[in-house]
Amino acid sequence: MSQAVEPDDRDDIEPATDDDAAVSILTNGDPLRSWVELPDSLVDECRLRIDDDGLHVAAVDPANVAMLETTFRAEGFRGFDAPDSEVAFGLNLDRFTSVISWARKRGEDGDPISIDLFENPARMRVSVTRTDQRMKRVSEWFGIDPDHIRQDPNPPDLDLPDRADPNPSNLVDAVEAVDDHRDYAYITRDSDTFVLASQESGNTQIDPDDDTDAETGAGAVYMPETAWSEGDGEATSSLFSLDYLDDMVAAIKKSKADRLTVHWGDQFPVELNFSHEDWGITSTFVLAPRFESDGGGA
Amino acid sequence: MSQAVEPDDRDDIEPATDDDAAVSILTNGDPLRSWVELPDSLVDECRLRIDDDGLHVAAVDPANVAMLETTFRAEGFRGFDAPDSEVAFGLNLDRFTSVISWARKRGEDGDPISIDLFENPARMRVSVTRTDQRMKRVSEWFGIDPDHIRQDPNPPDLDLPDRADPNPSNLVDAVEAVDDHRDYAYITRDSDTFVLASQESGNTQIDPDDDTDAETGAGAVYMPETAWSEGDGEATSSLFSLDYLDDMVAAIKKSKADRLTVHWGDQFPVELNFSHEDWGITSTFVLAPRFESDGGGA
Amino acid sequence: MSQAVEPDDRDDIEPATDDDAAVSILTNGDPLRSWVELPDSLVDECRLRIDDDGLHVAAVDPANVAMLETTFRAEGFRGFDAPDSEVAFGLNLDRFTSVISWARKRGEDGDPISIDLFENPARMRVSVTRTDQRMKRVSEWFGIDPDHIRQDPNPPDLDLPDRADPNPSNLVDAVEAVDDHRDYAYITRDSDTFVLASQESGNTQIDPDDDTDAETGAGAVYMPETAWSEGDGEATSSLFSLDYLDDMVAAIKKSKADRLTVHWGDQFPVELNFSHEDWGITSTFVLAPRFESDGGGA
Repeated sequence: MSQAVEPDDRDDIEPATDDDAAVSILTNGDPLRSWVELPDSLVDECRLRIDDDGLHVAAVDPANVAMLETTFRAEGFRGFDAPDSEVAFGLNLDRFTSVISWARKRGEDGDPISIDLFENPARMRVSVTRTDQRMKRVSEWFGIDPDHIRQDPNPPDLDLPDRADPNPSNLVDAVEAVDDHRDYAYITRDSDTFVLASQESGNTQIDPDDDTDAETGAGAVYMPETAWSEGDGEATSSLFSLDYLDDMVAAIKKSKADRLTVHWGDQFPVELNFSHEDWGITSTFVLAPRFESDGGGA
Repeated sequence: MSQAVEPDDRDDIEPATDDDAAVSILTNGDPLRSWVELPDSLVDECRLRIDDDGLHVAAVDPANVAMLETTFRAEGFRGFDAPDSEVAFGLNLDRFTSVISWARKRGEDGDPISIDLFENPARMRVSVTRTDQRMKRVSEWFGIDPDHIRQDPNPPDLDLPDRADPNPSNLVDAVEAVDDHRDYAYITRDSDTFVLASQESGNTQIDPDDDTDAETGAGAVYMPETAWSEGDGEATSSLFSLDYLDDMVAAIKKSKADRLTVHWGDQFPVELNFSHEDWGITSTFVLAPRFESDGGGA
Repeated sequence: MSQAVEPDDRDDIEPATDDDAAVSILTNGDPLRSWVELPDSLVDECRLRIDDDGLHVAAVDPANVAMLETTFRAEGFRGFDAPDSEVAFGLNLDRFTSVISWARKRGEDGDPISIDLFENPARMRVSVTRTDQRMKRVSEWFGIDPDHIRQDPNPPDLDLPDRADPNPSNLVDAVEAVDDHRDYAYITRDSDTFVLASQESGNTQIDPDDDTDAETGAGAVYMPETAWSEGDGEATSSLFSLDYLDDMVAAIKKSKADRLTVHWGDQFPVELNFSHEDWGITSTFVLAPRFESDGGGA
């Protein structure tokens, strides 16, 4: 599926890939921009792993609190040419997002993009075409040595009995609402109502003798008919940093995920599993809980 | 009209008030957000007085230059349950505006809101419902001790012969225009033309020997057929700080006032009387004049 | 064509000029705001020269790198009354743009504006009318002594063989794209493709041993079928600061130029000739090249 482009064939602005590349991809702005929001919410650079299944990224934030695993399957691209054995490329996310943001939202999936990855030395070439403007932008840069990027995290194997499937956009609004009161919130449920709340109970009662209650008040957001138990039915509750949660759910919304499931337990990490079926993107965020002894009550 | 809501009745996201509350109100986002713009333009916290007539606020800014009196009548709410005798609540305006801003502009008057005021200890509970998203937000916080809030101002009894009834939105644009030149402006009229001007004459002639004229130039805005006299017909003129005037007219515009009358005299305060008939809101801003001897010519 | 306006004729908000003025102009917001973007992109104040042909400005930026010559022809105004012999006025561009920005985009060419220039002392009066709001704004200020403004530049006579006629809006997007990589770019062509590129070759190949290549990568934008030669057909190339180029092409776009031609040569200045035919505006920007020996490779 690779197409050769002669360096002086400037009249042809159609996206085209290079025969000498180790990996060649044809895609469009919308899916690529949406996907890159995910690692970009946690890290500045990541190890992009490519095999004939697609693109893979696993990353953990510098404070070791949040983790991402995501795959963009080969079938989700208009063209995908990669070797069987994995190729790794150290990707500067600022540079990459800046280049692909030149692809505008237009037509079905945005302006067309081609990506070539070369080896020895490792470098990436991205071209973006604006057909209506009769313009083509080409950018090229060297990869970061993948050995200089933090090792991929090992996702924990967790037993998380509680579930909820809120709409990603609603979850963004819910996090923003509890954020008005404190910098952390409990994730819990009341029967089939998914709850984000300042208080472990999921209610908003406040105590005049509690300094935090007196200073910040308390808030809660209720999302009926979105929660259930895969365990013994007893509702569980864990406390999380709203800064992290906010970044993660914003990235999930921007990634245009069409399916999201939240998994949580009792003082355990929360797992956010989400996907975009049409584009072939499957992802998981894991966020470590904040413990009461961290000063969770303050 | 109060409706009980059981704490665990989470499936019901309809706005509901609490039987234990001293005051219970059912309303919508648009009128409430509009009304709160008024005190929020002058102060950070205010004494909210509630009786069976409605909500009342009187406030004066920290520098004693501007004053507000406003009433939101009980008939303007979808539900209003308050005792005959006045209840006072010390309201943190930042917290209140932040919570009610979660109610979006939607439908006729915005997302529904319920407010409960409890006594001993004094606290407020506000719930906002987003019916289409099937979400409900509840926030609760303690009141500020009303005795710790500045006393309500006594509105002066002024004899102000000149009047104008500009469109609130036009007045915002007029203040912005004269603000290009100086940080104060004269309010005056030329026959039935309402005038905001850098110069007392209401004209723009400038004097090369006057340092302020040379440095800033002069500006004026003319609004024909909006001014008249209730006095002897002689036009009067007073000088005002544009910072204050700007904040006040912006708040009047945001409050969606459908009727505004400006009253002024000769080196007297200006009174802005305005109302929103449908919502039952009636208000007055009073702004003290800046005197020439303040360095009004500089 | 002058119309007298009596100072107390406040009911009449129609734009009107003053019989005592040396120069009187009737125009509208859109052409005037668009035109002023041009000098405003280079300088804070300029010498406005007026004769019966129209308005003329020539300006050079404080660093002597970029130069502008522009004429707004008398025929482009709704009314134009000026003496045969040139009148010069020292114009503070901040004040002027701020005043005319009160004219909104409305109707065919925006809100109507009248300008009067008086002599002894030199002053300008601008009035802006918002017919729908029944408001008129008048502003008046003294001119800067023209002798205190930098002398008008002498445009160089250059032999520039290469040409391109990109759409102004596309050129803005192209400059923004190469700006992602470095703070300068080459202007060149590949046959009839106009090229903006980090590399003199117009390609994007990068060298791992070149520090700049390793740090910033390289970018290029290709615009096929917009370039040609008026010389011997050999493509030429010169290096330019993207800061300057960005300001200039942004001003050209805002000026709504409907025709743009880029002229360049081998390590020579670039000339941007552009015009708005309907409004009678003709302009030239000249930008000095950055030389390799300036550290052009760094």
